[in-house]
Amino acid sequence: MRIVVLAGGIGGARFLRGLKQAAPDADVTVIGNTGDDIHLFGLKVCPDLDTVMYTLGGGIDEERGWGRTDETFQVKGELAAYGVGPEWFGLGDRDFATHIVRTQMLGAGYPLSAVTEALCARWNPGVRLLPMSDDRVETHVAIEVDGERQAVHFQEYWVRMRASVDAQAVVPVGAEQAKPAPGVLEAIAAADVILFPPSNPVVSIGTILAVPGIREAIAEAGVPVVGLSPIVGDAPVRGMADKVLAAIGVEATASAVALHYGSGLLDGWLVDTVDAAAVPGIESAGIRSRAVPLMMTDVAATAEMAREALALAEEVRA
Amino acid sequence: MRIVVLAGGIGGARFLRGLKQAAPDADVTVIGNTGDDIHLFGLKVCPDLDTVMYTLGGGIDEERGWGRTDETFQVKGELAAYGVGPEWFGLGDRDFATHIVRTQMLGAGYPLSAVTEALCARWNPGVRLLPMSDDRVETHVAIEVDGERQAVHFQEYWVRMRASVDAQAVVPVGAEQAKPAPGVLEAIAAADVILFPPSNPVVSIGTILAVPGIREAIAEAGVPVVGLSPIVGDAPVRGMADKVLAAIGVEATASAVALHYGSGLLDGWLVDTVDAAAVPGIESAGIRSRAVPLMMTDVAATAEMAREALALAEEVRA
Repeated sequence: MRIVVLAGGIGGARFLRGLKQAAPDADVTVIGNTGDDIHLFGLKVCPDLDTVMYTLGGGIDEERGWGRTDETFQVKGELAAYGVGPEWFGLGDRDFATHIVRTQMLGAGYPLSAVTEALCARWNPGVRLLPMSDDRVETHVAIEVDGERQAVHFQEYWVRMRASVDAQAVVPVGAEQAKPAPGVLEAIAAADVILFPPSNPVVSIGTILAVPGIREAIAEAGVPVVGLSPIVGDAPVRGMADKVLAAIGVEATASAVALHYGSGLLDGWLVDTVDAAAVPGIESAGIRSRAVPLMMTDVAATAEMAREALALAEEVRA
Repeated sequence: MRIVVLAGGIGGARFLRGLKQAAPDADVTVIGNTGDDIHLFGLKVCPDLDTVMYTLGGGIDEERGWGRTDETFQVKGELAAYGVGPEWFGLGDRDFATHIVRTQMLGAGYPLSAVTEALCARWNPGVRLLPMSDDRVETHVAIEVDGERQAVHFQEYWVRMRASVDAQAVVPVGAEQAKPAPGVLEAIAAADVILFPPSNPVVSIGTILAVPGIREAIAEAGVPVVGLSPIVGDAPVRGMADKVLAAIGVEATASAVALHYGSGLLDGWLVDTVDAAAVPGIESAGIRSRAVPLMMTDVAATAEMAREALALAEEVRA
């Protein structure tokens, strides 16, 4: 079975770990969000790709959910001693090595997709990890500070400001000109099932869908497209998805997110059992829905979620 | 008193520490060798400038003589795990931060001299540290491997091969086209004394003198130029200077090095007490010479060497 998964960072990575346990023989291609990418200290950092790579490769810090296990922070401390920031982005020493290799390869002319493949040769994530695009796309968030509207990089909004002010708009700068990375459209066209993990619908999956050609390819693939709600009981399971959903005028509810994707894209949608009351409304919008436990408390629980998603896909297909 | 010092790495840096103790009120400008610079992992590494900066700024690893104190090597280990080398060059985590800042500033368009000044703002070395040039100069060593002549970067010859094969030639690639960094010629012209510490006469001081204009400025400065022999008892005090001296046809003796610089450049030359017999020969070549202890066993001994050098300069002047 060929499965394509659109993934952001922590939520997507943890779901993928469950999916691999649920379907160990499946051929999984991950289309990773690169809108969160940022240049720090002259180095190219791809937080979402790395979170998927480290999580599936056994290198993730389980506690934090991002960055490397057994991490140290000597380089960051020294950069701060030089007065070179930002200090709000937590790059550890082990993590730095990844960005150094990536930046060196990009500087030598390799596209991000080739660099990602090279990095994965070490981590053996057990999936094919593709960036959504080799072109630069950078998610900016419009905010109002002292009555003046300004745009900040998504990481600045998310990590430095912790989404403490309202997002007025979320703009994937460069997306309109971006092309899907080599292999992305081919993987979608060859897929048996396409899954949206409980990743952020705006800045993760939304950004991937903003690359021209990807949304169309998914809609036209003619295979079940099933998602899992990142909203449980009217609040994001983790992160601050409600802040960026508000920016695009979508309520932070399991059903509102499903309707935002829409029946033109989505065939099935899993909501958590606490949101079972939303199922009829979602189904009446033409999206098959089931209420199942959606808390990724451990790999076993996450694998069960993946099984439910694949089962819903088969229901849709039949 | 304005003192200009031409410096390589460890020997130059340690001498400077003694000089600062011997002449705490002197205005010292250091012209640092950049021929040893190397690009590693996409980062610009300036070993000699950093050794001076760390040594005078209190950040040096005293045991090794290079690199940072309390150093860790997480980044290097991770790079090796990615299969990215070279592994033979010992970059520690703290040291990496320096190269990251430097590379980022160079990428932003700042010349190396401005970058060095910015880095020194943290370290407060108590001297003005100038790279010999903002232009790229790279010392290559010609060697013979299996009967075939090839050129390797100086660091590869020195660090990886540990000078285990004969050097056929030493070539400061790019030196002919290089211009002295801003401030270099001005500092020489304004100097009261010019010192050559016991640095490598070929790949450190020789490379600095290979930048067009510097040798001429020193010869024409009209102030005492005094050097300290890096050769004691017919062997280099540290390093493998004899290997590269052989490549340019100079014997590894205190007097041969003095004559190599020549009386057109050098006014005074200190040799170690074990080489006292060489003094008459050096003096008959027109270079004033004294035999004094030249082992930099500690800062006090090194300060005494600096005092002897300054005393010889005053003798020359008188």
